[in-house]
Amino acid sequence: MIDRAGGAAAFAAACLIAPAAIALPQPDTFELRNGMQVVVIEDHRAPVVTHMVWYRVGAADEPRGQSGVAHYFEHLMFKGTRAVPSGEFSRTVARNGGQDNAFTSQDYTAYFERIAADRLEVVMRMEADRMRNLAITPDLILAERDVIVEERRQRIDNNPTAVLGERMLAMLYPHHPYGTPVIGWLHEIEDLSFADAQTFYRTWYAPNNAILVIAGDVTPERVRTLAERTYGRVRPTRDLPARDWVRDPPDIGPMRVVHRDEKVRQPSISRLYRAISYSTDAGRQAHALDVAMEILGGSETSRLYRALVEDQQLAVSAGAQANTSGLGGGSVGLFATPAAGIEVAALETAMDAVVAEFLRDGPTEEELARAKNKLAAAAIYAQDSQDSLARIFGASLAQGESIADVVTWQDDIMAVTKDDALAIARETLNLDRSVTGVLLPAEAAP
Amino acid sequence: MIDRAGGAAAFAAACLIAPAAIALPQPDTFELRNGMQVVVIEDHRAPVVTHMVWYRVGAADEPRGQSGVAHYFEHLMFKGTRAVPSGEFSRTVARNGGQDNAFTSQDYTAYFERIAADRLEVVMRMEADRMRNLAITPDLILAERDVIVEERRQRIDNNPTAVLGERMLAMLYPHHPYGTPVIGWLHEIEDLSFADAQTFYRTWYAPNNAILVIAGDVTPERVRTLAERTYGRVRPTRDLPARDWVRDPPDIGPMRVVHRDEKVRQPSISRLYRAISYSTDAGRQAHALDVAMEILGGSETSRLYRALVEDQQLAVSAGAQANTSGLGGGSVGLFATPAAGIEVAALETAMDAVVAEFLRDGPTEEELARAKNKLAAAAIYAQDSQDSLARIFGASLAQGESIADVVTWQDDIMAVTKDDALAIARETLNLDRSVTGVLLPAEAAP
Repeated sequence: MIDRAGGAAAFAAACLIAPAAIALPQPDTFELRNGMQVVVIEDHRAPVVTHMVWYRVGAADEPRGQSGVAHYFEHLMFKGTRAVPSGEFSRTVARNGGQDNAFTSQDYTAYFERIAADRLEVVMRMEADRMRNLAITPDLILAERDVIVEERRQRIDNNPTAVLGERMLAMLYPHHPYGTPVIGWLHEIEDLSFADAQTFYRTWYAPNNAILVIAGDVTPERVRTLAERTYGRVRPTRDLPARDWVRDPPDIGPMRVVHRDEKVRQPSISRLYRAISYSTDAGRQAHALDVAMEILGGSETSRLYRALVEDQQLAVSAGAQANTSGLGGGSVGLFATPAAGIEVAALETAMDAVVAEFLRDGPTEEELARAKNKLAAAAIYAQDSQDSLARIFGASLAQGESIADVVTWQDDIMAVTKDDALAIARETLNLDRSVTGVLLPAEAAP
Repeated sequence: MIDRAGGAAAFAAACLIAPAAIALPQPDTFELRNGMQVVVIEDHRAPVVTHMVWYRVGAADEPRGQSGVAHYFEHLMFKGTRAVPSGEFSRTVARNGGQDNAFTSQDYTAYFERIAADRLEVVMRMEADRMRNLAITPDLILAERDVIVEERRQRIDNNPTAVLGERMLAMLYPHHPYGTPVIGWLHEIEDLSFADAQTFYRTWYAPNNAILVIAGDVTPERVRTLAERTYGRVRPTRDLPARDWVRDPPDIGPMRVVHRDEKVRQPSISRLYRAISYSTDAGRQAHALDVAMEILGGSETSRLYRALVEDQQLAVSAGAQANTSGLGGGSVGLFATPAAGIEVAALETAMDAVVAEFLRDGPTEEELARAKNKLAAAAIYAQDSQDSLARIFGASLAQGESIADVVTWQDDIMAVTKDDALAIARETLNLDRSVTGVLLPAEAAP
């Protein structure tokens, strides 16, 4: 599964709030002797646990020419060890009443299980086993490659919005690895070999490159005991590579791309700008950017929605998103779908005018307060979901933040001023670092 | 010096005809025991020789994150060996009445000297010496890096046309190394280290990765004697890396980029399409593409010039170029400069109409004959220049062609049919594989 909330998937991000960015109570954390970091979030409301292992490796770490190998490897992790044959991992979890899944982003690869608290050791044993002991064969690998080729066809190539998004990211990041899709370029997926997969596994899958996050009906003491008995026995990797990604030249645009496809029923326009992220910013700039984008387009009370949908009736939807969680930087996006009979060009002009007015005058006090309250409230809602709790800490740590960054997030959001929000909006919403994408039906006139 | 006729430099190519593509008489060729290829083109009109060493390495072979190192290394090659101290190479050539220079493209790095025929051994000795024996120091390397940063500022960053060209190539090749500029991204040039340069030198500079081309008043026998005495003593490299470049996804557009700069006096529009090259095509497709682009925009009698400049008076210049010499593929380009008072958008619409008409109807017999004769004539003119002769064979061999490809080029051009030219033009001039670039003054309205 490709994690759409990850680094470069900005525009397609399912959730408005970066998962790396919600204030929560302090969890317990410790490190095993082999370097594996452990985070425990006690949640005794029900006798279940969410168990996640986050590897500090994602698509952005792939060797050049082997795009897709990180996600490919996520699939292979279900293909069995000597102790747990292919398919048996998920069957064992299900037999014990649990669920499991995995996801890959530019920045991380994560495996999770939700299971009754008294079965926790079962999944820890199996997860620790497959960290090193996968018994994959060339035949298995070839078969799974076909599965991924088909997954790419369905998720990207048959989806005009995804095709456009992939092209926009390739333009926004001409050099940085975020320009390469997480699932990989088709011709490179087709060329992935057994040796590529083996090398990737041996290089990156190690306890000293992993974060164990357990949320649920468990104590830190019990987790420590179980972790030492399972993960604690896995030897660390000595020469873990640095996650040293190439950077892009600063100014590259303004760029545009048009994608026409007969499957498009509704034209739309979107724009991505390169941005800072929680991992790359100094001080509270990423917080201020989240607030600014919330004001500009985070809801139906935002500038873009009110102007384009309600007042001018040029659009049936309009908004903005901030993807501020990437280890290698972030992005922000604007999007709008024209109302019937409205040309995309006219909608774009109106959208640009809303942005220009916002950048000229900045937010009102009322807008600022509303946006901060809404973002801060999300931190409270997140505590209702054990899965969210575990994901927030896991993703944040895997993307270079500290537990303190997560815990103080809510306060930091509340500290953002009008000037902070306006300054980072002005810096970010710069067409010289943007790609505008237009999606049109095949039959539309040029 | 950056070689603008190389691989990706399509649009800026100084000469209309790909240097890799001109039919000439058969030269003598042989190989030294260490794998160095030697080509001798006898030319006894004057007692001078042109001596070139072509290395099969260019910017496209650079390690990721070290863009610019190939060109940087070209500079370092003048920094001295134990036998020939820094600066002494060029001084010795000059003292002997000669000239020397060097150039780097995506596909190759070449060093050349023109000197009196009886001094040939002097340059062969010095060139063979610096193939392995450079005595570069970290201090020297840092100083030269500043020279290159300044070169980049002058050639690219202060030149709006070059900035736009760099961005267009980055978009046209989102993954392939041709998307990275030969001179390198500024922030990567600034980070180049002594170790990067040393590794690049040791990896690629070797007799079995080099082609010696000597044109002039010399015999193959004498060249062999001198070559065995000089280059023949240089040990080959055992594990020369494969030149195995990543490829791009097939369809990526249509894309656009606008560059505004206060230094722009005259707006212009250009478009690049990805294309085949002599190295990647099958049969005579590259020949047919050269012919098609000559008809479309190669001269003042071309379709584009006549329609846009003469008939409609929308442009002060208009034309097309084919860059069909890249080892990793080629590109073709269209360009036009609007007449006073004409909007770029109107000019683009008219340009598109000329292309559409050409792709619908194809060339006339008269156009075909004129284009083929013009291209073939260039092969004849090239024989007047010793430098051109040497460059054509050197570049063609360094870019994966054979001597036979060069020798039969003129005949192959004459064999192109109307259908050949139309078929490859239709395949190539596809907006889904194109970038349109617009250059505007800073003050112009959007």
